[in-house]
Amino acid sequence: MSLETIARQFVDLCNQRKNFDVMRTMYHPDIVSVEGDGRETTGQAAVIAKSERWAAANTIHGETVRGPYFNGPSEFAVHITFDVTRKDTGERKSLQEVAVYTVQGDKITRERFFYEGSW
Amino acid sequence: MSLETIARQFVDLCNQRKNFDVMRTMYHPDIVSVEGDGRETTGQAAVIAKSERWAAANTIHGETVRGPYFNGPSEFAVHITFDVTRKDTGERKSLQEVAVYTVQGDKITRERFFYEGSW
Repeated sequence: MSLETIARQFVDLCNQRKNFDVMRTMYHPDIVSVEGDGRETTGQAAVIAKSERWAAANTIHGETVRGPYFNGPSEFAVHITFDVTRKDTGERKSLQEVAVYTVQGDKITRERFFYEGSW
Repeated sequence: MSLETIARQFVDLCNQRKNFDVMRTMYHPDIVSVEGDGRETTGQAAVIAKSERWAAANTIHGETVRGPYFNGPSEFAVHITFDVTRKDTGERKSLQEVAVYTVQGDKITRERFFYEGSW
């Protein structure tokens, strides 16, 4: 598959709120996920567990993914807006982030999230 | 200056359409600029000249910069929407892109543009 095909499938699935399908089917077993503070999580199962913790802590009312946008032969980026309520505080907020993905051998091998604060 | 201060100044100036002020005052003399196809331009003067050629070929009706968003100690990203008309074809279009900037010693040393096609 081309980078473009993979990236469009990624965006389509996320806009259908199928983020966990993306992680289960499109992530490499050894994926590295880098949060805004630079902290890395390695391995598909650990990365999915991290996202499950985030999804459990927040009520997600909506998600809009813009893109994909391309740079070079193996990277694409998206812009994501989440409409979420933190379950512990009840605060509802629009969260925006940029995510950059590296694709190798038809699988996503690295994701880097750019955002503000530590929501 | 902190990364955050530099990134906010960058976004504020771009949203005032002062992109060339950004390039003249915030870019490192040896900046490397990477286009969507991976092509690199090195040096502040060459990067400014590249942007001048793009600005001369398009009528820019509007520019909206979302962000900044942060990853690690030295990088920030933005999402940019341009409302432009290509002067050669008269076609008006909304162009979206993600840009990722590296900051070292208070100057921007690298920029990478993620987008679709070759506008």
